[in-house]
Amino acid sequence: MAVRTLLGLLRPWQQFRTTIITLRGKTLVEHGCARSMSTDTTTDNLTLSLDSKTGIATLEMHRKPVNGLNLEMLTDLNIALEKAENEKSCKGLVLTSGLPKIFSAGLDILEMYQPKPERLAEFWRTLQNMWMRLYGSRLVTIAAIAGHSPAGGCLMAMSCDYRVMATGKYAIGLNETLLGIVAPFWFRDTMVNTIGHRETERALQLGHLYGADEALKVGLVDHLCDQEEVVKAATEEMSRWLKVNAVARQLSKSAMRQATIDKLVVRQEQDIEDFMTFVQRDAVQKALGFYLQSLREKRG
Amino acid sequence: MAVRTLLGLLRPWQQFRTTIITLRGKTLVEHGCARSMSTDTTTDNLTLSLDSKTGIATLEMHRKPVNGLNLEMLTDLNIALEKAENEKSCKGLVLTSGLPKIFSAGLDILEMYQPKPERLAEFWRTLQNMWMRLYGSRLVTIAAIAGHSPAGGCLMAMSCDYRVMATGKYAIGLNETLLGIVAPFWFRDTMVNTIGHRETERALQLGHLYGADEALKVGLVDHLCDQEEVVKAATEEMSRWLKVNAVARQLSKSAMRQATIDKLVVRQEQDIEDFMTFVQRDAVQKALGFYLQSLREKRG
Amino acid sequence: MAVRTLLGLLRPWQQFRTTIITLRGKTLVEHGCARSMSTDTTTDNLTLSLDSKTGIATLEMHRKPVNGLNLEMLTDLNIALEKAENEKSCKGLVLTSGLPKIFSAGLDILEMYQPKPERLAEFWRTLQNMWMRLYGSRLVTIAAIAGHSPAGGCLMAMSCDYRVMATGKYAIGLNETLLGIVAPFWFRDTMVNTIGHRETERALQLGHLYGADEALKVGLVDHLCDQEEVVKAATEEMSRWLKVNAVARQLSKSAMRQATIDKLVVRQEQDIEDFMTFVQRDAVQKALGFYLQSLREKRG
Repeated sequence: MAVRTLLGLLRPWQQFRTTIITLRGKTLVEHGCARSMSTDTTTDNLTLSLDSKTGIATLEMHRKPVNGLNLEMLTDLNIALEKAENEKSCKGLVLTSGLPKIFSAGLDILEMYQPKPERLAEFWRTLQNMWMRLYGSRLVTIAAIAGHSPAGGCLMAMSCDYRVMATGKYAIGLNETLLGIVAPFWFRDTMVNTIGHRETERALQLGHLYGADEALKVGLVDHLCDQEEVVKAATEEMSRWLKVNAVARQLSKSAMRQATIDKLVVRQEQDIEDFMTFVQRDAVQKALGFYLQSLREKRG
Repeated sequence: MAVRTLLGLLRPWQQFRTTIITLRGKTLVEHGCARSMSTDTTTDNLTLSLDSKTGIATLEMHRKPVNGLNLEMLTDLNIALEKAENEKSCKGLVLTSGLPKIFSAGLDILEMYQPKPERLAEFWRTLQNMWMRLYGSRLVTIAAIAGHSPAGGCLMAMSCDYRVMATGKYAIGLNETLLGIVAPFWFRDTMVNTIGHRETERALQLGHLYGADEALKVGLVDHLCDQEEVVKAATEEMSRWLKVNAVARQLSKSAMRQATIDKLVVRQEQDIEDFMTFVQRDAVQKALGFYLQSLREKRG
Repeated sequence: MAVRTLLGLLRPWQQFRTTIITLRGKTLVEHGCARSMSTDTTTDNLTLSLDSKTGIATLEMHRKPVNGLNLEMLTDLNIALEKAENEKSCKGLVLTSGLPKIFSAGLDILEMYQPKPERLAEFWRTLQNMWMRLYGSRLVTIAAIAGHSPAGGCLMAMSCDYRVMATGKYAIGLNETLLGIVAPFWFRDTMVNTIGHRETERALQLGHLYGADEALKVGLVDHLCDQEEVVKAATEEMSRWLKVNAVARQLSKSAMRQATIDKLVVRQEQDIEDFMTFVQRDAVQKALGFYLQSLREKRG
């Protein structure tokens, strides 16, 4: 690939103040290009890399210790997703984690505990936008899950088109009730669209975390394989999806998902207010405080 | 438990003219308290008992011969459900039958055959209210089904959060079409929420009664066990649900069910009219007459 | 059966200028009656026959080579469906194919390639009407599928009440995206009603064609049997459905399906316009052209 082509390819991405795009095997040029954006801290949270031969981007999260979704992480995810979305040569995206034993632990509780209202609102809006971007992406999106994936981690996985999970002891599910909080309606809608009404009702009430086998059985994930094979299996599955006419596939996807996204679009501000009111209730703050305390004690 | 506490506990219940609440192991005090309410005939139909240690109430139906839901039975059910709902120490409710081989045979046909219009309307309204109360209950509700559960019996089971059924020869399902009548929309909605659109469509058209294995397979019940273990299994499952933060669990449940309940709320009067018109049609009266005749002949 | 009865039976059908109704074992009289309608070409496309003993009609498609749904075939289907619908003695309909290895290949691509706008609109409207008639039929409808059933063939099968499929190498599914086109919303709705949201989303994006085993597993078909037994198995299943009170069964069916049909009723003209705009796009015409070319080359 000529440097000129590569630069042309990068151009639309440069409007963003953002994460490094690692074009495999073209690191020199890439770092030259990306350096002007490298002052961002986004590289601490994730890496987006595009295989220019296959058109498959890999979005690897690595915010220690558990890929917790705080405002900065969510902002990075939004920028990375928008980059991949706008890059014409990019056709698919594998969403995965670079940390061991965890896909993503979901929302960073610290954003919700004793929050500043302005940041709390911004946090929630950024989460909403991330979900709308991922759930409505024109790309084929496949989650490669080689670790625990509770709450917001489960939401991200469900928002992809296909889910590959490692066999083993990892858990996935919307377990919000266990923390005394309630998943917002668009988490629920996404789960209903994935595993149906009854299973969602049970799962949400119990805050149920599914093991891999159980997740496969109810359709929360689509394929199981060894931990080491998860990204490979995701990429192989992707090749099947990329054979389909892209426009027809995107229109079909949108037809199935847009109504669910539109429900949030028209209620976005109300949903932010609802979330802020709920989180700032004394009982919820107390529950979060206890939870954080128990986490600290666990770590010794 | 001190008598004073117990009285405090009973107080909110005394506003109802109603069923005896049997507080296990506290029969003396209880009967003292309950005596003023014991003129009600409700004890012929059911017993509500609360285990004050676990917070689990058991609602046992025993209206002979088949727990048919007539106006009095439904009224008793409403009062019992409201009591359990209003009793702060009560967290969960196991719904079961004290009669052999039957959970509930559903609506008492005699209420529909050659009915007086006023009672017919009241009958239907009381059924609607019972369903709204049970389906929307703040309590964890588990059906312990150790007998047949057709029609309205199936509706009650489906309105709980979880269903334990005895292995064996019992049947469960909405079999209204077999009698020439049609399940109202909120029966259908409850079934769609439980087993999905396609399975409901097939089941309703055929008036299909599921055996236990088949019911488990399509998700109409959640767990099978020996007949003698049904209440025990329900109580064990309950303990799992009671570990979850109650407010978060209730909000999650409500989020999944309120829209379905609201559909009836806004159409309640129309639904009563529709039912009355339908039931009083000549063809339906004739079908019910034949059915009652065949029942009488069966019994010899 | 007396000739008089037979004539009475045929009378309501004579308002249609249409397909031959073959009343089994009554061929003389039948041909006498039908002769006035026999100038129609509809016999080239299908045969509708009614077993007057059982009340079960068989609608056998045999438009060579693959039961492609062109305007004439769809018109014949509409007329045949309306006949069966209006014939009081007819209670059920088995939809099947008289051609080997194919149920129906779906829409005839030639109707969409370089179309005349007026015929294109009429083609689409006739397809819409056929679906509304079949999906909303008062009859028990069972698809006997002993061959491939892609796209519109799958739609027809899904619109029946029950699907029997031959074990073997046949495929069924909505594979529109593979041709670069998109299934209209009522195809999607019918599939969601049959196999649920998640499975539909995946199937539509991939244009997935299911083998018989897989189709059974996801609920796209209900029963598998040997190829030679398909019509027999459909008829046997039918007898179970015909035992149910017809009015109650029809009301239950309508209650589950009418909302989906109504969505098309209110958007029918818009849907025709959308289809015409889509099909006449250059990219779609090009894709259809390539596809037709590849078909021609296949045949050598």
